[in-house]
Amino acid sequence: MSDGIPFSKGHGTQNDFVVLPDPDGALDLTPERVAALCDRRRGLGADGVLRVVRSAALGVDGPEWFMDYRNADGSVAEMCGNGVRVFARYLQHAGWFRTGELPLGTRAGVKVVSLEGDRVAVEMGRALVGPESVATVGGREFPGVAVDVGNPHLACVTDTDLAGLDLTVPPGRDEALFPNGANVEFVAPARGDEPVAMRVHERGVGETRSCGTGTVAAVVASLRAAGRAEGRLPVDTPGGRLEVTVREGGASTVLHGPAVLVAHGELDRSWWETAG
Amino acid sequence: MSDGIPFSKGHGTQNDFVVLPDPDGALDLTPERVAALCDRRRGLGADGVLRVVRSAALGVDGPEWFMDYRNADGSVAEMCGNGVRVFARYLQHAGWFRTGELPLGTRAGVKVVSLEGDRVAVEMGRALVGPESVATVGGREFPGVAVDVGNPHLACVTDTDLAGLDLTVPPGRDEALFPNGANVEFVAPARGDEPVAMRVHERGVGETRSCGTGTVAAVVASLRAAGRAEGRLPVDTPGGRLEVTVREGGASTVLHGPAVLVAHGELDRSWWETAG
Repeated sequence: MSDGIPFSKGHGTQNDFVVLPDPDGALDLTPERVAALCDRRRGLGADGVLRVVRSAALGVDGPEWFMDYRNADGSVAEMCGNGVRVFARYLQHAGWFRTGELPLGTRAGVKVVSLEGDRVAVEMGRALVGPESVATVGGREFPGVAVDVGNPHLACVTDTDLAGLDLTVPPGRDEALFPNGANVEFVAPARGDEPVAMRVHERGVGETRSCGTGTVAAVVASLRAAGRAEGRLPVDTPGGRLEVTVREGGASTVLHGPAVLVAHGELDRSWWETAG
Repeated sequence: MSDGIPFSKGHGTQNDFVVLPDPDGALDLTPERVAALCDRRRGLGADGVLRVVRSAALGVDGPEWFMDYRNADGSVAEMCGNGVRVFARYLQHAGWFRTGELPLGTRAGVKVVSLEGDRVAVEMGRALVGPESVATVGGREFPGVAVDVGNPHLACVTDTDLAGLDLTVPPGRDEALFPNGANVEFVAPARGDEPVAMRVHERGVGETRSCGTGTVAAVVASLRAAGRAEGRLPVDTPGGRLEVTVREGGASTVLHGPAVLVAHGELDRSWWETAG
């Protein structure tokens, strides 16, 4: 076992990840290996891979640790609000993060995380409200608003019963407004500080149990529909409860949520070689 | 990490399992823990759990090792032709099985396994041909034959294009002949020793990538349709290639197939406690 590839497996609101600690950047992490690793039958199975690598090992300036996040299909991804919590929990597990606030490098810039007991808070940065637009589901139109949280979102505030939405096909949206695609959120309007329900369709993935940046976009839109530019709302996603704080009129947002490590071990070396 | 619960993860033709080594029977493996472990988001994810325990630790007579197999929903299962190969591979990995033949205790009786390079062979016992019957898919009738391989099967030999079958709903079958349900296989007729294609619908599960006992039943039926009571046929399931040897007119059958270990490690102790 000593020649295996160390890993941990964890999830944040059922968005699950394989964590690969690779502080010195020695791992040959090909797209094929990421895809094999995330395959839920012939691999370990996950929504994505979080490689834990030192910025210095990548030759980039920035905080000590960099979150090298990959999608399940092997492609490179910018940022993941659920993944970054699991990433922080792993650093805590490894003894590399003990208390206080810790800046992390990501492809979407520096994100600051902090431990809040069984939850992790992550500063998600600015949520920039863009033009109003419309999502189409099953021929029905849902008015929404573009929100940029480092990646593009179309957040639709609706009173409709979310359980009735068919998200097995991607919602229709304005291709000219979203040339690189967009995640589409459906969220209830804010009523005081009551929890709001949310469902999300992620570009290139399909409906997911939860999406961190999507939750931020949804809360910004939900508050906006109630005439509020700031506030703190619990959000019930199919994967569990998250919470979002919007400050400074949207210039600063924080995502609070659970991060659970399930297992730690080593990938079989011969499996790894074959998967490459 | 030293207080975690040791595990391995592996698969046979994409039928995947969490292996829990528990030689002394010390593990408190509740149905809730099995279900949490097999959950593909909040656990490790698998089709089932294989607990590796000594017969002596269970207080039962028999071979040294007993395969305590559990379904993903936490219920107890008798036997799994893909699981037993992964079980044997784990024993090899642990150094508890080096060469030759090894008898294993299972809830369906003693099964003898042997290592064949990257494949594992398992003696599946008697395949008993019963009455002819019919399966119905999308209003179309497929003649088949009942085959008992420790569990009940209806194996239908057909020249139809298997890819066109809709197995998202259970095939119709004679409830009087199968009071406890049955797995239903669709398989091409044997042509010499050429590989035959197969698809399978497992009772209580749905279509699966592969089914060990189903593959045995399918080969018995495929040979029988060609007027043969014995032989050896490769079978291409959606999860990969298996091979079945039928000897002594069906009184003895052997399943040959791959068994891959993907990872080894420890379940987080606090996760385990919470899952119970």
